Amino acid sequence: MSEPRADHIMQVGLGFWASKTLLSAVEMELFTELAKHPETLAELSARLRLHPRSARDFLDALVALNFLERRDGTYYNTPSTDLFLDKRKPSYIGGMLEMANVRLYRHWGNLTTGLRTGEPQNEVRSGEADPFQQIYADPERLRGFLRAMTGVSHGANMAIAQKFPFTGYKSAVDVGTAQGDLITQVALANPNIAGIGFDLPVVAPVFEDYVAANNLNGRVKFQPGSFWDDPIPNADVVMMGHILHDWDLEQKRMLIRKTYDAIPKGGALVIYESIIDDDRSKNSFGLLMSLNMLIETPGGFDYTGADCTGWMKEAGFHSTRVEHLVGPDSMVIGIK
Amino acid sequence: MSEPRADHIMQVGLGFWASKTLLSAVEMELFTELAKHPETLAELSARLRLHPRSARDFLDALVALNFLERRDGTYYNTPSTDLFLDKRKPSYIGGMLEMANVRLYRHWGNLTTGLRTGEPQNEVRSGEADPFQQIYADPERLRGFLRAMTGVSHGANMAIAQKFPFTGYKSAVDVGTAQGDLITQVALANPNIAGIGFDLPVVAPVFEDYVAANNLNGRVKFQPGSFWDDPIPNADVVMMGHILHDWDLEQKRMLIRKTYDAIPKGGALVIYESIIDDDRSKNSFGLLMSLNMLIETPGGFDYTGADCTGWMKEAGFHSTRVEHLVGPDSMVIGIK
Repeated sequence: MSEPRADHIMQVGLGFWASKTLLSAVEMELFTELAKHPETLAELSARLRLHPRSARDFLDALVALNFLERRDGTYYNTPSTDLFLDKRKPSYIGGMLEMANVRLYRHWGNLTTGLRTGEPQNEVRSGEADPFQQIYADPERLRGFLRAMTGVSHGANMAIAQKFPFTGYKSAVDVGTAQGDLITQVALANPNIAGIGFDLPVVAPVFEDYVAANNLNGRVKFQPGSFWDDPIPNADVVMMGHILHDWDLEQKRMLIRKTYDAIPKGGALVIYESIIDDDRSKNSFGLLMSLNMLIETPGGFDYTGADCTGWMKEAGFHSTRVEHLVGPDSMVIGIK
Repeated sequence: MSEPRADHIMQVGLGFWASKTLLSAVEMELFTELAKHPETLAELSARLRLHPRSARDFLDALVALNFLERRDGTYYNTPSTDLFLDKRKPSYIGGMLEMANVRLYRHWGNLTTGLRTGEPQNEVRSGEADPFQQIYADPERLRGFLRAMTGVSHGANMAIAQKFPFTGYKSAVDVGTAQGDLITQVALANPNIAGIGFDLPVVAPVFEDYVAANNLNGRVKFQPGSFWDDPIPNADVVMMGHILHDWDLEQKRMLIRKTYDAIPKGGALVIYESIIDDDRSKNSFGLLMSLNMLIETPGGFDYTGADCTGWMKEAGFHSTRVEHLVGPDSMVIGIK
């Protein structure tokens, strides 16, 4: 490292400026608008109802942050914002950012209190209604939420479908399947696999539409149930993505034991999310995600590959390994 | 550009996680504590009153973000956090981050409303007391605030003292001088310069202590006044840092005209802050700072070098140029 840099400190410390600017752009559906056709400052201002005072600064800040391009006074999406932030494309990942904008940004304002009390700092803290209960009670919001979950996991789902050796297995179940993108990608890439998506009954119609849209009706089925109240469906490969970090240590161990019971000898458990590196010094996203579990849950936390393989071995899995997927995500594999 | 990257979008969109984590660490004076001596997880948890649930995730996230180092279970500052985030060192730049943590983070949550109304979104919006009035009414808070302003401008102040050709000039005034770091650095580097710090009378004792600590009592003086209600003190070089962006276009022009009247023929006006590049596509910090002026002021905005040299020429300055200082900061020079 050369001379210490003050501007890196300021850039991260004031990083909420760039973050909130992008979140407001997603909220206003700026990228969805520009995916229809490039527009000038005047056209965009009218379309998004921007006051003239700061409209140009807002759009040019997004240019400088590489989320827009501007040529001859006309604003265009970049290839990546066009692909990932156009709400009408299936590749949209803005759902998570919409939630961050409406909820998490505000709740993270109470991080210091969370760190000092160990208590969640979301709606629960202020006695507001549980947002997830509300989401699950409203079919349209539920569909949006489950689609958002697909958005944030799609890249990793594709990687698992390619990288995990499904050859030799006949069945796979995705526990907490949501819209079903993981089991869909696995089934599309591995014609030998019969798939089950396991989630609460209310998820069924959203799952079934998605599977039908991918022409997998015969081979991928929904099984309603709760991974707390019901046994996990039997399958050669049990997969759990972005589930385990929601829960405390005892709950994590119990879930892994339940999956063990669902798997035949020689079968596999695949757990994936933003697995923290064993030295806990590199995967900043995984460590920050764990602080997000502090904000959002009573006892959840993220964990390292070594933590997870340890729990797997306790449950009886005889061989384990960790494999990187994409970005901050890895999968932890246990073989029974 | 290679394949579009979803993780860059997520990283910026959720960038408030890293930002708030650093702001909470500054709030807790973690770096000031570690500057005294490195500490273990248990020691730091006790000292900062961290709940055991997330203490380790919090500290390890700061390791992964390169703000701490961890060796054999002991946490250390990095060279840059030790220099810039230890409250007891004069090089401390955390004052601005303390303010960001207490105020700006929350106000930026209303960015979308600001963009649609053109109205400030700080305490003014909710009818709370004006925080700057409160700061200026309390000598201890004022001292902290003025020191914070030194923290964010010190690097640029040093650069101006070195880069601007003060040879041949005899006097310089810093308009809105605060603690007086700019005029102090200019006087230290240029023994030919007699300096004046110009600011509200309440600032005098803080300024005078700083000048005395730098052994410049004879050569650098305070002149009380308001740059709106009083004439700007006459000097060969008039300097204004982080002032002009607070004001609307007409006020900017008026301030530049007032400086013109204070400068002799051949004298210079030096305006500096996060000057936006003329193409408005690169200096993201300057563009985001302009959005911060939306949040904080009724009409303020940041501007390009071309904007500023244009206003200088309107006021009568005959030659102008823009010169980069450090990080996002540049100076705009007008010669009368």
